[in-house]
Amino acid sequence: MHHFKTCPSNKFLVKGSVDGTSVRLGMDGLVLYEQSGYGRPEKDGLRLAPQEALYLVYRSKITIEGYDLESLISYFCEQELFFRSFIVYRDLRERGYVVQTGPHDFRVFRRGQRPGVGTSQYMVRVLSERDLIDFEVLISEAAASINMRKQHVLAVVDDEGELTYYEIKLQPLQKDQPEPTLEPVDGLLTGRSVLIPGAAGSVFEAAGYGKRFDDQRLMLSLVEAGYLQKREILTVHHRDQILSPGEYTELFKADDAEATEKAAVYDQIRDLGYIPRTGYKFGHHFRVYVCGMSHSDLLIHAIARGTALPMSVISRSVRLAHSVKKKMLFGCVHTTGIQYIEFGRIKL
Amino acid sequence: MHHFKTCPSNKFLVKGSVDGTSVRLGMDGLVLYEQSGYGRPEKDGLRLAPQEALYLVYRSKITIEGYDLESLISYFCEQELFFRSFIVYRDLRERGYVVQTGPHDFRVFRRGQRPGVGTSQYMVRVLSERDLIDFEVLISEAAASINMRKQHVLAVVDDEGELTYYEIKLQPLQKDQPEPTLEPVDGLLTGRSVLIPGAAGSVFEAAGYGKRFDDQRLMLSLVEAGYLQKREILTVHHRDQILSPGEYTELFKADDAEATEKAAVYDQIRDLGYIPRTGYKFGHHFRVYVCGMSHSDLLIHAIARGTALPMSVISRSVRLAHSVKKKMLFGCVHTTGIQYIEFGRIKL
Repeated sequence: MHHFKTCPSNKFLVKGSVDGTSVRLGMDGLVLYEQSGYGRPEKDGLRLAPQEALYLVYRSKITIEGYDLESLISYFCEQELFFRSFIVYRDLRERGYVVQTGPHDFRVFRRGQRPGVGTSQYMVRVLSERDLIDFEVLISEAAASINMRKQHVLAVVDDEGELTYYEIKLQPLQKDQPEPTLEPVDGLLTGRSVLIPGAAGSVFEAAGYGKRFDDQRLMLSLVEAGYLQKREILTVHHRDQILSPGEYTELFKADDAEATEKAAVYDQIRDLGYIPRTGYKFGHHFRVYVCGMSHSDLLIHAIARGTALPMSVISRSVRLAHSVKKKMLFGCVHTTGIQYIEFGRIKL
Repeated sequence: MHHFKTCPSNKFLVKGSVDGTSVRLGMDGLVLYEQSGYGRPEKDGLRLAPQEALYLVYRSKITIEGYDLESLISYFCEQELFFRSFIVYRDLRERGYVVQTGPHDFRVFRRGQRPGVGTSQYMVRVLSERDLIDFEVLISEAAASINMRKQHVLAVVDDEGELTYYEIKLQPLQKDQPEPTLEPVDGLLTGRSVLIPGAAGSVFEAAGYGKRFDDQRLMLSLVEAGYLQKREILTVHHRDQILSPGEYTELFKADDAEATEKAAVYDQIRDLGYIPRTGYKFGHHFRVYVCGMSHSDLLIHAIARGTALPMSVISRSVRLAHSVKKKMLFGCVHTTGIQYIEFGRIKL
């Protein structure tokens, strides 16, 4: 076989034949695997996935009996999602990566490495901009990749065939600085705020709670007041009565369909020592300050278990977060805890 | 009455009394209307809306029998949305504007002007970040304001009581440059694209259609191909058959739940001579190039009649559009036409 180990020139193209949804090459095709990581070797030749076969025809490395490029595209495109997947495959190959198909959808080797003599770096899932992202599925796929010490990447093909790559990270948030000790205080439910009268407000303001209503009063948001009430720091008064945490929660939920998830995320990141503030101006639940910094580092959006969002909506969030130099995290609230998922746009 | 026309000093505060959901002042209160546009004059005094009364107590301009600031807040806050509305009223007043209540929710005078001796400039609607924006209602309210030659403004109060103002414009898009003449061409439906083979692609590319698949082929998106098919410029081939516009539309719709609205908006802005391209990277349907510019000026998102979006989701869109120096328009598709609605963040 040694005499085949030169790159096939255009004059002596490797010949292949379509075999169902893949393409078979003879023994003279093995060089494509050995040098550039195409296909999977079999006992009497090489089997190419359709993306690989089409790419090799497109690059004039092989010919396929009875097909030109046009008719091969048509043949494979009978499979619903083939063309999209091919566009991603081609892009990765043109960037100089060796790409193998599977497990979901591509396995990409470190630059300069290939099967047998190297390790893969990325697990790539191909999506359209209109695909719905089911967060449970995403978390499970990303966890599988990360478990194999690979980076989990989404390759999103937009309506015009342009590509955007996102790396998915599943990060437990680390403990930040300890919360300062706060003395118990009374507050008055006022509209959708809780007002803390008197000098006590200043201490809470310094700890990253609330907004000044005036010199005499600090205004807490419902999620802030709920946290402080649960920690037995705040007593909430309403119409000459004291609201129990249960009553307060009911009232909060009546006003905000996302109250449960928002409170779960707020409470946890507060307990970790971060300072969450409303992220309204950025269209998400929280902007989060880390370790006393004046610039917020994270945008966090709380979502319920079972949420699915269109990729185009996630794209909007990520683009916005990056444009204001923040990381975009979704906090997926399960009964067992909160899984934080970061979407980071990357260039491969 | 002339001796009352001096500003009331703190020592001789105007006294008022609560009267249901408003506050009544005697004849000595009229000066507040005449000098600063507070309240509505009645035959024997002045009637203040609760926002006005609370603000005047807060600024120590009046006192109200039986109430201090604290108890007056509690009293008025029995009305569900009062506190939010007060925060906006106070902000507008502190910015030096004369504000009258009604028709929805505030009428704001030009700086330095007031009722009787000036005209109002803004009609302001107060919203919470969690309010759902019903586009039909918004269009009808904005049209009413614009009809009165006023700017229509949304004042959005976030969970922490911070304010953001948006001006709503209802703009018919103007005719841009004429579309170049395009010769009929054949294309092949390939996955979710239509490929135009041969040299013909270059002409379409120059006119702002498609993306290069390779030297020999241009890739059109489904919405682009649909437009060209309807204009009888493109014949779409699929599996050795020619697709009729009806068949093509069914196929497009099967792939994309928003196909109808996207196509309606795309077709109209193309007909006007603009160049719409996918806005995926900005999380919206289209980025739109005006008059051959290399920078796209607009982001347009197509929505169906009857759509309602949370204000926080719209905020995300506007923030993103502004961060990339574009205007944010929603194209609301009615059977009678498309109403474009621009949300622009403004500082009052």
